[in-house]
Formats: sequence, structure tokens, C-alpha cells
Amino acid sequence: MEGCERIIIGIDPGTNVMGYGILGVKNKKPELIAMGVIKLNKFDDHYLRLRRISERVTGLIKQYLPDEMAIEAPFFGKNVQSMLKLGRAQGVAMAAALVRDIPIAEYEPRKIKMAITGNGAASKEQVAEMLRRTLSIPKEEMPDFLDATDALAAALCHFYESSKPLVEKGCRSWKEFISKNPDRVK
Amino acid sequence: MEGCERIIIGIDPGTNVMGYGILGVKNKKPELIAMGVIKLNKFDDHYLRLRRISERVTGLIKQYLPDEMAIEAPFFGKNVQSMLKLGRAQGVAMAAALVRDIPIAEYEPRKIKMAITGNGAASKEQVAEMLRRTLSIPKEEMPDFLDATDALAAALCHFYESSKPLVEKGCRSWKEFISKNPDRVK
Repeated sequence: MEGCERIIIGIDPGTNVMGYGILGVKNKKPELIAMGVIKLNKFDDHYLRLRRISERVTGLIKQYLPDEMAIEAPFFGKNVQSMLKLGRAQGVAMAAALVRDIPIAEYEPRKIKMAITGNGAASKEQVAEMLRRTLSIPKEEMPDFLDATDALAAALCHFYESSKPLVEKGCRSWKEFISKNPDRVK
Repeated sequence: MEGCERIIIGIDPGTNVMGYGILGVKNKKPELIAMGVIKLNKFDDHYLRLRRISERVTGLIKQYLPDEMAIEAPFFGKNVQSMLKLGRAQGVAMAAALVRDIPIAEYEPRKIKMAITGNGAASKEQVAEMLRRTLSIPKEEMPDFLDATDALAAALCHFYESSKPLVEKGCRSWKEFISKNPDRVK
């Protein structure tokens, strides 16, 4: 973490397993700091799961002091029940950032896959392998859970997106950029 | 608040207006401490709304030091998009309680209406009027927003539910109660 210009925490929120990835940016280059999962399926109780998310995400923020949070956020789901539960898990994770004024960016899974592999329909394994190569992660250090690499992919996608020149983002002027991104003006 | 045996914060989470009600219990009788709304519709940005919820609910918890949180929680909604947003708003409000180990109980709107008025299909106005009489609130002190009375109704519903003898809750033994309510065992 030493000498990092920026630290991005990526979160892949789920109600069974939540993935996280910490990405550092040094000399404008992204590098892996940490990744892992928060296992929730051992708790039957919905509130215990939410509390676990709250505790662990708060702990990660205190440990790594990220400047930004990137969340993988599917906008469509199977049914209203599962979306409500997913929304709660996301809300609890986001609250840990919100109370510390850490800006949050969210990306659809398709957008993240496209940013990392160039293919919006890539498999989780393809995303993991591309991340491994891009960040030069030794094979033995790759996690068993693809939720961790998915979270790291969200962080890397945010790094790519926020490093793009404005024109590529579809904004032709500062005025337009500001009107489209009022939250990014300090 | 002085001399209260218990303080319950009721929350009616919404993405446009969030209601809150603070209920005290003195000599086993419920009484109004405060109620109001957190207006969110002045913020266009979804994250600013979530941050506002986080700040205000955290502020209310610090001010009134509630022992429990009761949430009005619809389990069905119009579409997955709105349920995701509602879930996020709920999650952010819940996180403020979770980080302080405050237990959360949730009740469906129908259940709350039934508990307050005896009619699960009662209107918001009927719920407000019944609350006013039950808690002897002067007419001039009633809020303009029914989100506030809905939140107070959630708190009062929780008071009623938690004051019921175990048999009425459908549990015939402590063992059964504990297995059904593991989170209520300290």
C-alpha cells in the first residue's frame, strides 16, 4: 500500500458470499493489494448476515483506507424478493463507505466483463485469468472463490473508467461532464 | 425519555421520504417521544439520498439511544428495480442499528395496520388517527406527513408484538421460541 496514489475497494455483494478486492494505484499502474471473500452462508439469520457484512466491510475500510468504492451491481434479478435482499446487502456495504464520505461507483456485470476481457459475456474464470495476467498475480495466490476476483474486477473496471479521457466517456465539455456528474464536483 | 424502560425507533423506509417515530415505554405504557420525516426527494442523486438516510438515522440513534428498531418492510413491490432501491434504503437505515448491536424487527404493512387498527386494509389516515388516540397526541402535534405516523405505527406494532405472551405468538414452549427466535437469545 505504501506509495499508492489511490486505493480502490471493489465489492461484489451477495447474500451468500460477498467478495472484496483492494486495488492500489502506483505510478498510474494498478496493483493487487488484497482480495478475499466474506462467507455469509453459515448464518441462517438474515440480520446476522447483514451485520457480518457491516462489520467486515467497515473493517476493510479501516484497514486499507480506500479512496473510492466500486460495486458490481446487477440491475435485474430473478424476482422482487431476491432483489430486496440484494439491495439490503448492497445498502449495508455502501453505508460503511457513505459514513466515511468515500465515493461509490457501480458497474453492471456486463460492463465489468467488457472492461477486463473485452467481452461482455466472458465467464467468471476468463475474468479471473485476465485479472491474473493484468496484475501479474502468481497462480498460487489466486483465490478459490470467484466472488473475490469478481470484486477485484469491479475495482479494476473503476480504475479504467476513471482514467479515461472525458471524451471517451461521452462528454464533450466540462459543463456537460459536471451536469452529468454533479456528485464528482467537490 | 426520562424513566423509559425501553425506547423503540420505528422506521418507514422509502426512497423519496423516510419516516421515523420514537416510542418510549414507561410503566409498561407506550408514549410518543418524537416523530418526523427525512425528505429525500430534494436530492436527485441516489447516493446523496442514501448518505442522507445514513446520517439522519445515525443521528436519531445517537440522540434517542433506542433499544430496538422496528421497520415497516413490504415484501412485494412493483418491480425488481424499485425493490433494489428500497432494499438499499432499508440496508443503509439498518446498518446504523447493526453497527450498534441494536436488534431489528420487521413487519409487513398489513401486519402493522392490523396491530394498530384491527384492520389489515386500513388507510394511512385511519392508522394515524388510531395512533393519535392510543398515544393521546394533541391534534395540533400531528405531522403533515403520513410517513411519520407509519413509522411510529411500526414502533407501536413492535411494542404490542413483543409484549404478547409466548403462546399468542404461536410458540408453545421456550425451546420452540428459542429455536424460532435464535437472535433474541442473549
